[in-house]
Amino acid sequence: MKTRAAVAFEAGKPLEICEVDLEGPKAGEVLVEIKATGICHTDEFTLSGADPEGAFPAILGHEGAGVVLEVGPGVTSLEPGDHVIPLYTAECRECEYCLHPKTNLCQKVRATQGQGVMPDGTSRFSYKGQKIVHYMGCSTFSNHTVLPEISLAKVRKDAPFDKICYIGCGVTTGIGAVMFTAKVEPNSTAVVFGLGGIGLNVIQGLKLIGAKQIIGVDLNPRREAMARQFGMTDFVNPKDIPGGHDGLVGHLVELTGGGADYSFECIGNVDVMRAALECCHKGWGESVIIGVAPAGAEISTRPFQLVTGRVWRGTAFGGARGRTDVPKIVDMYMDGRIDIDSLITHRLDLEDINKGFDLMHAGESIRSVVVY
Amino acid sequence: MKTRAAVAFEAGKPLEICEVDLEGPKAGEVLVEIKATGICHTDEFTLSGADPEGAFPAILGHEGAGVVLEVGPGVTSLEPGDHVIPLYTAECRECEYCLHPKTNLCQKVRATQGQGVMPDGTSRFSYKGQKIVHYMGCSTFSNHTVLPEISLAKVRKDAPFDKICYIGCGVTTGIGAVMFTAKVEPNSTAVVFGLGGIGLNVIQGLKLIGAKQIIGVDLNPRREAMARQFGMTDFVNPKDIPGGHDGLVGHLVELTGGGADYSFECIGNVDVMRAALECCHKGWGESVIIGVAPAGAEISTRPFQLVTGRVWRGTAFGGARGRTDVPKIVDMYMDGRIDIDSLITHRLDLEDINKGFDLMHAGESIRSVVVY
Repeated sequence: MKTRAAVAFEAGKPLEICEVDLEGPKAGEVLVEIKATGICHTDEFTLSGADPEGAFPAILGHEGAGVVLEVGPGVTSLEPGDHVIPLYTAECRECEYCLHPKTNLCQKVRATQGQGVMPDGTSRFSYKGQKIVHYMGCSTFSNHTVLPEISLAKVRKDAPFDKICYIGCGVTTGIGAVMFTAKVEPNSTAVVFGLGGIGLNVIQGLKLIGAKQIIGVDLNPRREAMARQFGMTDFVNPKDIPGGHDGLVGHLVELTGGGADYSFECIGNVDVMRAALECCHKGWGESVIIGVAPAGAEISTRPFQLVTGRVWRGTAFGGARGRTDVPKIVDMYMDGRIDIDSLITHRLDLEDINKGFDLMHAGESIRSVVVY
Repeated sequence: MKTRAAVAFEAGKPLEICEVDLEGPKAGEVLVEIKATGICHTDEFTLSGADPEGAFPAILGHEGAGVVLEVGPGVTSLEPGDHVIPLYTAECRECEYCLHPKTNLCQKVRATQGQGVMPDGTSRFSYKGQKIVHYMGCSTFSNHTVLPEISLAKVRKDAPFDKICYIGCGVTTGIGAVMFTAKVEPNSTAVVFGLGGIGLNVIQGLKLIGAKQIIGVDLNPRREAMARQFGMTDFVNPKDIPGGHDGLVGHLVELTGGGADYSFECIGNVDVMRAALECCHKGWGESVIIGVAPAGAEISTRPFQLVTGRVWRGTAFGGARGRTDVPKIVDMYMDGRIDIDSLITHRLDLEDINKGFDLMHAGESIRSVVVY
């Protein structure tokens, strides 16, 4: 079939809207009509050329929602008409990882997904006979896409696509980091570094589970208002602290009365990751890395920080098991227990998708959503 | 009173056996006759001058066992004749740390202990009118010493002093890291870096809780036999691996079939700490730092290691709450469930204490114990 897509032909170039060829689903695969997709920093990271694993030409996008149109042989858990959210972290429920209680990093389709192809080693996308690779197993910048059955979360039909698409990445990453990875207890104190799309979702996750103090840190004073709306109790702008970044840890330790029970790095800056660890409370503070650092960058600290009880961990997709947890997060949204609407600051047509990247670069959007 | 002690008058110099003056216990304090004391690497670290917080003259030693001779006003949990193990990590059971479920780092006497004095800010030791500081709140290189009540674990009277003194540090640190800090599950795979006194106790802790694969890593081939006796299933000498240290992580990942569930660094080398983290299994592997690194040394890794599910933590005194857990470890020894006897390779008189340091430097001892 033919479908409309925003194609990344080259790193560093704007996406081009084209009619591409899409093969139908093979065994274990599903054809999905994407109804809406968010534009995430990870798409930008790959498009910029900074992602060492980025391959081109590709159809980016990994934060979508849509409807099942057709299922390939052997697909049993989905049928045409089902509403779904694509998962860049699959959940096969049978690999060593899915069966381990401590991880969500299903490895069933990991290798081929990393190469931009379906599990059989081939791509379903092409343009004028040239292969186009899939991206993060999703490629939601195409109006139609094909995914493995295990890479789709089935969700309720009354949930609006143009909002729940955000659950495909940002919402789940932020809320999940609190609920699934850190397992933050009620009455905890927490510091959130970076008040963009991920950080705001961490904040609403912290509010949801009953944290008592939620400190947000950002260099951009315009982030304060919305962060407070989402539950932030204290705002810290490193520019306003004596010593700037160097004074940050001491300031946060003082503000929390000894250090944070939990901290979350939502930027991808290794210096901030260090501060996030070191502002944690001696004895029990845990720091969670969410941000993706530039290739080759390293985190450092004195081992004394860990020997005296701090814990350093990270999270991918918020520790969520997609097919199991994503439908629950959709329910949380539909029940009004989390806010997504306020975070979707811009709606765009596919033709204007490059404008979404511009808004991101300018720091004007929290999340732009393309509606097909 | 007068008592015999090995005094560290200066960094880098041998200890001197002297008759020192010891004041009796003040409020909340206890006078203990030390019956036996181990010589630990931490004593050596401070005596060498490498410890930036080391103060002199001091009476070192923190791994002892003895008998209560006299209690100061207000002491209620101990009485003369009780057998005790001094604790360099106190347990007051009422500070913020003792009441927190995730830490053993009681802070009640921390500040004064760090300054080498009792909680009232003064030392009980002196020599020819000159003040001698306490060490780690214990000073077990003196035949008699004074400690806060909360720094003493009361233990059963049938346990031999010359063995259970080792529970005051090395045994508890190693076994506790497994049981209390990492909470290793049965059937886990684990890698232990450094097969000295701590590493061997980690190994017997792992065996005790039912680990299925226990890999020991050491540059010294003479460590292999005893480690196997304690439960090690595989020995790896980095010198025997293609690439040496650089090939170590890959070798260990292969040997464990994907990475270790847990790893323990028992050396204090930041390069080894990195290898210990990176040999852990993607998704769930946890690395525990036990070794004490040189002042100023830093650990590093790519944040990707954590984002893909590895956890980096540390431990002090094995996460044990001394007054609560040390008596249980004494029971484990008396029940024959852990072996201490094999680890105590040398017995010395106080006059020969410097020989204990020589044996340590030469790598000939696991543990030397001074018996008064």
